[in-house]
Parts: sequence; C-alpha cells; structure tokens
Amino acid sequence: MVDSTEVRVPLDVPKSARHIYTANYLGMTKGSGRLMLFAGDQKVEHLNNDFYGDGIHPDDADPEHLFRIAAEAKIGVFATQLGMIARYGMDYPHVPYLVKLNSKTNLVKTQQADPFSNQWLDVQDVVTFRDNSGLKITAVGYTVYLGSEFEAQMLRQAGRIVHDAHKHGLITVLWIYPRGKAVADEKDPHLIAGATGVAACLGSDFVKVNYPKKEGQESKALLKEAVLAAGRTKVVCAGGSSVDAKVFLQRLHDQIFVSGASGNATGRNIHQKSLQEAVAMCNAIYAITVNGVDVKSAIKIMK
Amino acid sequence: MVDSTEVRVPLDVPKSARHIYTANYLGMTKGSGRLMLFAGDQKVEHLNNDFYGDGIHPDDADPEHLFRIAAEAKIGVFATQLGMIARYGMDYPHVPYLVKLNSKTNLVKTQQADPFSNQWLDVQDVVTFRDNSGLKITAVGYTVYLGSEFEAQMLRQAGRIVHDAHKHGLITVLWIYPRGKAVADEKDPHLIAGATGVAACLGSDFVKVNYPKKEGQESKALLKEAVLAAGRTKVVCAGGSSVDAKVFLQRLHDQIFVSGASGNATGRNIHQKSLQEAVAMCNAIYAITVNGVDVKSAIKIMK
Amino acid sequence: MVDSTEVRVPLDVPKSARHIYTANYLGMTKGSGRLMLFAGDQKVEHLNNDFYGDGIHPDDADPEHLFRIAAEAKIGVFATQLGMIARYGMDYPHVPYLVKLNSKTNLVKTQQADPFSNQWLDVQDVVTFRDNSGLKITAVGYTVYLGSEFEAQMLRQAGRIVHDAHKHGLITVLWIYPRGKAVADEKDPHLIAGATGVAACLGSDFVKVNYPKKEGQESKALLKEAVLAAGRTKVVCAGGSSVDAKVFLQRLHDQIFVSGASGNATGRNIHQKSLQEAVAMCNAIYAITVNGVDVKSAIKIMK
Amino acid sequence: MVDSTEVRVPLDVPKSARHIYTANYLGMTKGSGRLMLFAGDQKVEHLNNDFYGDGIHPDDADPEHLFRIAAEAKIGVFATQLGMIARYGMDYPHVPYLVKLNSKTNLVKTQQADPFSNQWLDVQDVVTFRDNSGLKITAVGYTVYLGSEFEAQMLRQAGRIVHDAHKHGLITVLWIYPRGKAVADEKDPHLIAGATGVAACLGSDFVKVNYPKKEGQESKALLKEAVLAAGRTKVVCAGGSSVDAKVFLQRLHDQIFVSGASGNATGRNIHQKSLQEAVAMCNAIYAITVNGVDVKSAIKIMK
Amino acid sequence: MVDSTEVRVPLDVPKSARHIYTANYLGMTKGSGRLMLFAGDQKVEHLNNDFYGDGIHPDDADPEHLFRIAAEAKIGVFATQLGMIARYGMDYPHVPYLVKLNSKTNLVKTQQADPFSNQWLDVQDVVTFRDNSGLKITAVGYTVYLGSEFEAQMLRQAGRIVHDAHKHGLITVLWIYPRGKAVADEKDPHLIAGATGVAACLGSDFVKVNYPKKEGQESKALLKEAVLAAGRTKVVCAGGSSVDAKVFLQRLHDQIFVSGASGNATGRNIHQKSLQEAVAMCNAIYAITVNGVDVKSAIKIMK
Repeated sequence: MVDSTEVRVPLDVPKSARHIYTANYLGMTKGSGRLMLFAGDQKVEHLNNDFYGDGIHPDDADPEHLFRIAAEAKIGVFATQLGMIARYGMDYPHVPYLVKLNSKTNLVKTQQADPFSNQWLDVQDVVTFRDNSGLKITAVGYTVYLGSEFEAQMLRQAGRIVHDAHKHGLITVLWIYPRGKAVADEKDPHLIAGATGVAACLGSDFVKVNYPKKEGQESKALLKEAVLAAGRTKVVCAGGSSVDAKVFLQRLHDQIFVSGASGNATGRNIHQKSLQEAVAMCNAIYAITVNGVDVKSAIKIMK
Repeated sequence: MVDSTEVRVPLDVPKSARHIYTANYLGMTKGSGRLMLFAGDQKVEHLNNDFYGDGIHPDDADPEHLFRIAAEAKIGVFATQLGMIARYGMDYPHVPYLVKLNSKTNLVKTQQADPFSNQWLDVQDVVTFRDNSGLKITAVGYTVYLGSEFEAQMLRQAGRIVHDAHKHGLITVLWIYPRGKAVADEKDPHLIAGATGVAACLGSDFVKVNYPKKEGQESKALLKEAVLAAGRTKVVCAGGSSVDAKVFLQRLHDQIFVSGASGNATGRNIHQKSLQEAVAMCNAIYAITVNGVDVKSAIKIMK
Repeated sequence: MVDSTEVRVPLDVPKSARHIYTANYLGMTKGSGRLMLFAGDQKVEHLNNDFYGDGIHPDDADPEHLFRIAAEAKIGVFATQLGMIARYGMDYPHVPYLVKLNSKTNLVKTQQADPFSNQWLDVQDVVTFRDNSGLKITAVGYTVYLGSEFEAQMLRQAGRIVHDAHKHGLITVLWIYPRGKAVADEKDPHLIAGATGVAACLGSDFVKVNYPKKEGQESKALLKEAVLAAGRTKVVCAGGSSVDAKVFLQRLHDQIFVSGASGNATGRNIHQKSLQEAVAMCNAIYAITVNGVDVKSAIKIMK
Repeated sequence: MVDSTEVRVPLDVPKSARHIYTANYLGMTKGSGRLMLFAGDQKVEHLNNDFYGDGIHPDDADPEHLFRIAAEAKIGVFATQLGMIARYGMDYPHVPYLVKLNSKTNLVKTQQADPFSNQWLDVQDVVTFRDNSGLKITAVGYTVYLGSEFEAQMLRQAGRIVHDAHKHGLITVLWIYPRGKAVADEKDPHLIAGATGVAACLGSDFVKVNYPKKEGQESKALLKEAVLAAGRTKVVCAGGSSVDAKVFLQRLHDQIFVSGASGNATGRNIHQKSLQEAVAMCNAIYAITVNGVDVKSAIKIMK
Repeated sequence: MVDSTEVRVPLDVPKSARHIYTANYLGMTKGSGRLMLFAGDQKVEHLNNDFYGDGIHPDDADPEHLFRIAAEAKIGVFATQLGMIARYGMDYPHVPYLVKLNSKTNLVKTQQADPFSNQWLDVQDVVTFRDNSGLKITAVGYTVYLGSEFEAQMLRQAGRIVHDAHKHGLITVLWIYPRGKAVADEKDPHLIAGATGVAACLGSDFVKVNYPKKEGQESKALLKEAVLAAGRTKVVCAGGSSVDAKVFLQRLHDQIFVSGASGNATGRNIHQKSLQEAVAMCNAIYAITVNGVDVKSAIKIMK
C-alpha cells in the first residue's frame, strides 16, 4: 500500500496542487497504485450497440444503469462524458469521476477516412465544473489514434490536456490505439509498446491499451514490453469482449500479476449485465486489481 | 405538472443561474415537462422551398408569418436564427425564443461532400443579446450530423454550446441526424437511439431526432429504444411531411404517449398554412403535447 | 420619407448605438429607405478586367477615378476595401463609405475549386479606423457564396460580421451569390429568393443579389419572390453588364417600383465611363432610387 | 524631393504614429519617393541555389555577405527574415531593415500543390523587436500568390499585416505573384496590373511585381498599366536574372523613368557578386533609383 | 573557450533575459561553443523500435535508462519531451534539459501522406514549468520537414518557438529534414545547406541536420557548404546508425574539425548500449566535442 508521502507527483503539478494530485491518485487507486476504471463512454463510441440488443440485459438500455453500478460497486473511477455526469451526478455524489474529453462515433470506417476524435471541452471547464458541482472529479481522459492521418491534431490536444490537468492536480488517463490506413495490425505487441511509450512522452499518469496478440505467443508475456516501455506511466489494459467470467478474470489477473499492468479498464463486461450481476463483476475485478486476490477468490466474490 | 422544486437542474448550471434555468425550463414546457417546439429555421436549411410554391399558402412567403404564428398560437418555444429575432423581436416581445446557432443550405448534396453545419455565433453573443434586448430568449439549438466526415467539428461545437448555455441558465436542444456517405439508413431505429445517446453524453436538455422507420414494424414501438437511450435528456420528434392533420396528430400522440417522447418539433406542418390555420394547428399540437388531450379533442381545437 | 423615429433598429444594436445606426441608415438611404450603392471593390474580384481595355474609358485605369465619382456624384454609399479608403480618404472626406470585408480574385474557376472569399479584417478594425480617421464609415459588406464547399466558413464569418457591426451601429450589406459545383443555375429565381432568406436569417440590413432570369418569364416579376423572402432585410439588385443606359435605367426602375427592391448596387455601369459621364449616370440612378423619378426624367438628368 | 509635410500618410496610421510613418517613409526613399530595396530573403525561397554554385562568388556562401553589402552600399532598405536580423543586427546597427514576415521553400512545385507562404510572426512581434533592439526596423513585407488555392489565407494575412503595420507607423511592401495551377501566364501584363490593383485594395505602400512580358511588345510599355492600376500604392519591379550590368541597369531606368515605377527590388543581381562588386552594383542601382541619374552615369559609379 | 562577455546574444533576446541566455548557452556548450546533445525523443518518432529488440541492450527498454545516462555521463543537454522530464526530473535534478516541442510517430509513411509534426505545448508552458520545477531547462527543440505539404504550418510554429524562446532566454535547436513526396534525395548536400540556411532565417541557435551523402564524394567535405550557409547558426550533425565506435567517433571528429560543425546530436549510438557502455560512449563523444581531443584519446576514454 502506498501512502501520501510515497506518491511520486510529476513536476508539471505545481506545488499548490500537489496535495490535490496526491489525494486524487490515492483515491483512484485506493492506495494500491492500481486502477480499476469502469468505462462508460461508449454511448458515443459504439452508439447504442453496446447497450441494447441480443445478449445485453435490458437494464443497460437506460444510461442511469452505469451510474447505479458506479455507485453500488467498488470501483476506482467511473469514466464518462461531462454531459452525463452533469445530468446524473446530483443523485450519485459519491462516485469518483473521470471526465472523458473526446469521443467519436463508429460510423465512418477507416477505409473511408482515418479516425479523428476531437476534444469537446477544455480542462479548465472540468476544473470549474468540479468546483461548482462539488463532485469528486478526480481525472480526465482522452483517446489518441496513433497512425491516423489526424494523429498530429490528437497528439497536440493530448499534450495540452495532460499538462493542464496536472496544473490542477487532476490525474490523466490516455486511451492510445494504433488505427488508420497505415496500421496493419492493431494488436501487434511491439506497436502497443510504442503506444505506451508515447503516453510516457506525453506525461500521462495512466495509459489504456489493447491486450496484444500474436500468433503462437501468450498475450500475458507480450504485454510486458509495453509495461516496460511505459516507464513510470502506468498501463491499464482492456478486458476485451470475452463473456466467460472466469476467463475474463484470469486474463485480468495475468495482466497485473504476470505482465505488470497497473489495472484495467472495463466497460461491456460489466454494464451489459443486470445491476446485481454488474455490481458483483465490478467487485470481483476490484478485488483482483486493488486487493490483489486470486481468481478463485474473485469468483467467490462475484457469486 | 412539475413545479420549480421538481426541475432537475444539471450540475453544469452554476448555482447563480439555477433559477434562470428553472424558469426557462418551466416556461418552455409550461410545467408539463414536455416541449412544443415551433421550428422556423428552415429558410437556410431548405432555402425558399418550404415557403413558396405549390401547396404552400401565400402567407408563408413573408418571414413575418412565422412570428405572427408564434405570437398568436400556443407554443413552447419558437426556434429561429438570431438575425431573424433581432429584426422582428421588437414587435413580438412575448414570444419565447430559441436561438438556432448553426445552419447550412441544402445545395451541396451528400454524394458531393458530407454535411457540415457551422456555428454562426457563440452562446455569449446570445446572452448579451438576451440582456440587451429584454426578449424572452430561453434556449439555444444546434444541429449535429453524426457519421459526417465533419462530425468531429460539430461534436466539439455542440459540446461547447451545451456547456456554455448551461452556465447561463439557457436550455439546449440538439438536432441530431445521422447523415453522410457512411450512413446507409438515416431512419434506422438503432442508429436513432445512438443519436439520442450521443445527446445524453453531450448533456443536452432536449434532442430532436427523426421518427425511426423499419419495414414491417411500427415507428411508435421503434422510438422507445431512442427514448430509453436518451436517459434524462428528453426526446422530441419530427412530425415529418405528412399533410393529413389527423394522421399527423395521431402520430404525435403516439410519440408522446406510446413511445415516451417529451414533445415535438414541428415546422412545415404549421407554417405552410394560412395564419389562421397555422395557429389552429399549433394549438392542437400544444393541446396534445402540453395538456395531454387525445387526438379527437385536438382535432376539435384545430377546427 | 422616413425620419429617425421611424427607422426600425434591429435588436442586436445595443441602446447606446441606436442613434449611430439610425443616423447611418438615414444617411445611406437619404431618408428614402432605399439605397444607391456605388460598388468599387472589383479591383480584387475582377482584377484589372473591369478597369482597363476595350470599351472602358481611360479615366478608369486609375483607382482614384472611383473616389472622384463618389465625391462628385449623388450616391448612398461607396463600397470598397479598407486599404483603398485609407489611401484616398483624406482627399475625399465627405464620401459615405462601406468597407467591404472580404474579396477574392477570379483566377481559380469553379471547375477547379469552389469559391471561398475570406475575411480580411474584423469589424473592430473598421470601428477603430472610423474613430481614428473621422471618415464617414457607415457600413460594412461581405460576400457569401451559397452552395460552395466553403459555405460553412463564409456563413460563420457573415454571422459574426453582421452581429458585430450592429453592436457598433454600422449598417450591413451582404452580397449573396449561389455558386459552386453544386449550383446549376445561379440566376434561378427560387434560389435567389433562398439567398435573400438566408440574409434575413443572418440579420443583414441589406442583401445584394443578382437579377433572376428564367426562360419565358420577366425578371421584374421573378424578383418579387426574393423581395418577399427577405422580409425586413432590404434587397438591392445588380444592374448587370448592360451598356445601353435607357435599358439599364428602366431595369433599375422596374426592380424598385415593380419588384419592390430597395435600391441597387452598381459598379461597371458607372465607373467604366469618363468622370463626367459616370457622375451623370450616378445622378440618374440616384434620382430613380432615392427620389423615385421615372426613367424619362432620369435620362434627362443623365444628359 | 519630398519633405515630411508632403508625405501622404494613409488614414489607418493613427495620429500618434504619423511621425514614425513619415520618418520611415522618408528614410526608406531618401526623400525621393522611390525605393531601392535590397532583397535578402531567398535563403528560404530558393534554399542555397542562389548562394552557392557556378557563377556565384564564394563570398555569397556566408549569409553575413548580405549584411556587409547592406552596411557598405547605398540602399533604401534591406529585406530579410527577423531571425537573420536578430543574429547579425548588433554588428550592422545602421542598416534600415524590412522584416519579411512569410517565406516558403521551392521544394513543392505547383504541379504537386499550389503555393502557400505562411506568416511566421505577427507585426506586434516586429514592433516589440524594434523597440527592444533599437534597430532601424522601418518596414514589413509579405508575399501573396494570387490564383493559388491558398489565396484566401494569404489575402487575409496580408490584409491584417498591412493594417497592423500602419497602426505602428511601419511601411509595407507586398510581393504579389500570380501563381498556381489556375495561372497560365505569370508575366501577363494585364494580370500583373491586376496584382498591383490588389495591393492597392490591401492598402500597401509598395507592391513588388515581376516585369511583364508579352510576345512582340516592350515590357517597359506594358508595365504602365500596372503602375496606373496601383494608384497611390507604389510599384517596385524585379530586376530578374539578367547578368549583363548594362542591360540590367537600362531596364531599371526604363521601369522608373519610362513606365513610372517607384523603384526596384534586387537580390541576386547584387549578392551573387564579391562584396566590392556588389557594393558597386548597389550604388549604381541607388543612383538611378534615388538620384535619378542616367544609365551611363550609373555604370560609371559601378566601375 | 568562450566566457560570458563573448557570447553573441541574438537581438530578439530582451535585455532582461540576456544573462539567462548567456548562462544557458555557456552551460550547454561548457564554454566551448560546441554542443553535445543527447537525443532521447525517439519513443514517439520511432515508437519502440529503437528501444527493444535484437542488438539493443535490455536496459534500454525502460525509459529511465535515458535519464540514468544523462545523469551519469558528460553531456551538453538531454533532449526529450516535457512529459518525460516531468515524470523523472525529480530524481535527476542536475541534468540540463532541452524540451522537444513536437513529435510524430513513423506509422504514416511519406507515400501515404507528407509528414507533419505538430507542436504539443507552447514556450510559455516550458517557461512556467522551468520556474515551478526548478529544473535546469535550458533549451527547446522543434523538427521541421522542409518540402512536406505541411511545411507552411511547421515553419510558422518554428518561427514562433524560436522567437518566444529567445524572449525568455532559452536556447533553440531546430531539427530540419527535407522530407516528403517532393524530396528525391534527403541527403543531398546542397539541399542540406538549404536546410541550415532556413534555420538561420528562423533565427535558431543550433540546427541539427543529417550528414550529407553524394556518390563519389566525402561527406566531411560536403558538409562544409551547410556550415557556411548556416552563418551564425551552429550546425550539429547526426551520428547516424553506424555501430562501430571508432568509425562513429572518427566521423564525429571530422564533422567538427574538418567540416566546421559545432557539435552533434546522438541518440541510438548511446542509449542502445548498457548503462555503463552508454556512459562511456557519451564521455568519449563529449571529449571530442567539448574538449576537442583526438579520436584515439576518445576511444581510450570510452574503454
């Protein structure tokens, strides 16, 4: 367990904001240094595909489902757009929030045009919102598509966001995905290690990447390169789309305790369930991530 | 009926502007929580096609016709561009106005270039105009074309507008239409539910979408997915181009009382009539939307 | 005749600037509500084609010719770029000026790229220039090419310019021309009525459009649709390239007294003549536009 | 000879800056109203082609060569980028400088993409630099490529630069070249007259254009149209690439005393020589331009 | 050896910042006027290719390796992104840093799109960071791709960065590489001399270029043209990818003592080694660059 004297505050956090940064960092990681991020920004990214349809519990059709989970389950932070937080936050005041600052839909495919996810609001808007609302806004997030023809615009916005967030003591999470006509294999482990290195250069606290894949090799071994390349930036990994809970939790455990990742970012594997099952799943993920329990114990928690 | 203690003010409205927001919300919905929006921004969107020609009453050729209707009929809000309001507002000071902040013409078709409707003025301009003019400016509006290659620019402008409007207690309405080379079916119910979810993430108070259509299914059933996906953002639906009043009003009634929509945005079905008929139509729509009367009673009002 | 109590000041003119707006409006229209605009911005739009060559009087080769005409003839306002006014204004201090804020050359044709005429300076620059120079700067102008792929940029600049100009009591004239690969018939009367409607939505005081043309119909009848669609925005019409003075003046008379236009914007038909003839032509145009004389009387004035 | 009471100060120069403008104007033209501009901005425009290679004196390989010439010879103004002036100005404090505000290399050819020369710094930077350094910064310059698909961006930057420069009493020189896929003949006299007319509309003090050419006609006669079209904006002409001094000086004399140009902008014909020869050439050009001597006398000065 | 009275401070450094500039310049060059720049910004430029794989020491997989080298070896300045410095600087407070202000990945190749490396942060951010952190931030860096279709954007950012950096006494290093569809031979000596001339016009203190190459000629002779063209801007050269230390050091020695370069920028040839070997290599490079020892002595230092 880490306490406030042990948090390594980056130097772009000014002295006056160091205690805020430290409190946010410890709050998000519960003193474990590891992050359980509940991802709830997909209503733009995937439109209604993730929330309504076969195999998705009807509870998920209402966006409030996400807030109910975030409030009842153990999580590190709940990531969603500011508009959603502004609309539901008064009823869920104890949830720790991450404001996702950019989003795009999935309508234009890469073969038509390379992806560009544009920044909606500035860090200053988030800071003012935090102060006015009294909500626990602890972090901001942003997605970069490396290899897109719009990479230059996104790197610039990401650099600005990390720098401004740190000025106000906010924690940053970058989602970095190689994508675009120039990217042949989005899951290539070497490329994903490149992505975490970019996050380090941008100065982010956390970087979320996809779990690498390579024919004939184990992903948990492959991810190590990315964890190393990230340096002091912490890697959190996607759970992916697997539906079997045991497989999912084992993978999570491997990512942290074999590969050295510092947490996970999970969306669909949580919210597509009923409220009760979603909360149970969250708690299981949390137990592995923050408390470091084994998979068997986690499954017990889930059931 | 809702009173001021029951209005759920979003948290990006600062404390100092909460009473303005509440008053605007109650004023626009007449305490019903449902909005009757009279749409009068089409002189850019459709040029003179909606205002002059076969089947259109000659009254409609003069833009003042819109203001006469807005002043004499029962409406929730009249939506048009600031330039129009500045020119006619002195003679129609009691009309509640929504300033539509972007507009484009219909000249460039999607096969030539994806649509981009650019912001003309900032929310601050609207606020200053409201304060200088003393007019009842209660809301701002903006159109987003999801799936356009310019989606990134429009999402950014929309995010900024909603956030700034709330800072000043203004209500927001987003018109969200999937459109562009990437969009095969603009009326697909799942896609329209995606659109209302995007509005929720942008934090808008209202979202106007097209009425979904799917071979062999009833639109009133299909719209429910979008109402659910919108969460606390209220859905208002287009009346479309139907000319038979009874069919039109029945559809409206279904949207609200079957699908769960919170109102309607109607333009051509009102203003292409003579002043007297337009006012009657407005009052019928209002009676359904705000007072919740049945179609038969509404038709009686209309006649 | 209109006096200052009868000028309908738009509501985006703040109270403190109402007397300036009123004085500018009355000054430009000489109390008639009708505008005689002498257009002298073509040295960019048409390069030297309009000023030098066969059929053009040698006087016109020198830009000062325009100022000499503006000073000696009766006009409502002389429209040209700020750079020209800054260079000659000290010798022509009594001319009422309109600063044209955008211009482009005619070198890139529509088949190569759609037109974009970019804003050179801001309204604030014009206001400062007015105050520093003591010149009679009464208005600003801007051209919008509807249907161009750059329409979005131009509508935004136009919206900003009209709004800012009104804040300082300046009168606005928009030149609106449908043009671009998407526009099949630039003179289509319905499309031109669309253009004047756009000007109304932008809140402009005046809009200058081309005279509509349609096989087998009279332009003076066709223009009525555009005058109606413009509402309280006043329509001024191009004189076109006709060289016969009588035909030209008759057309002008028709535009105002048959179609309901509120003036004219004339360039080549004035300045391509010798100073003396140009002044005479101006005075004839003025007599029709402002004093409402008939064509016969106007021709007498011209001679 | 002109004295300070005779300088016609444009009206966008505020009263407080009139004496600066007048001093700059008289200083640059030595009271003659004619400008000898020594052009030294080609290290970007032509990379090292103009400075190193066959037929170029080895002195020219070192950029300081330009400053040595500017300091030892008689010139009106020395035009180069601010970075160069900042680096050498302390050793050449008496040279009158023009800061060239945009530049591009010659690597991308017109058949690949139309030219865009982007502004590097603002006029305010130049003013601050002038005040901090104590150097004789008397003017700013900017290049516009008319007919380029980027014309809109360059006209906007040029308009802003001229306006801001005048606010601070700086003299402006615009280099205007028709160039791009839309331009068939860059030396067409009518087009070059168009270019000088554009400079007049932008309000520039001087405009530098290429010497027109037309099969079977004399350039010195053709240039007259451009001088006329420029009005009160003064035309300076390129010397071109001729190497024979007598031919070069005769052309220069013709441009001024036959065509009516107000000076010249000469680069390669000066700096590609040894310091001594370059100084002699400068002095010869100066004698014609400012003192109005004939070619024979100028050649005597050169030798 | 140079002392503080001999440093030639460019005139865009205001008087109040001259002592900072002088101290930074002397600090970076250790009074030799020559710069040993340790380049550590490639985690974006080359992703993980330079840091992990065959022939690369495992130490290099962790970004902290770069800081360990920078702290233990003799260097002039360590160049990397601000995010990295913010994360590791507290443990390496004595390292002199250069903040690299732009970066791009290598994913999009030139045949797909010309390169654009966008600015992430402003010079003001660096200055504030310097003052808040107390770190030895002595310089900023920026890469320009001449001949790219985005050259205009990069030249503008570079011009602004150099100017703003000098205002605050920071030293500037520009990396200038000709690259893009228009560039046939990136190592052409004449073109590289063009690049150093551009740096001079931008006013940079140092310019880093590739070592020129031409069939049948010696690079050390070819580089002289670039050194001359740079004038008072100092040229530093890439070491390239050679792995034989003796060849590498000889080349370095030649660049400085034959061609007249003022230092070197070396990355891979240092950091791909173990910490101990990397430090030794740094010290050898430093001995040549700053102390001017011969290659034999340098190799002795290395071993």
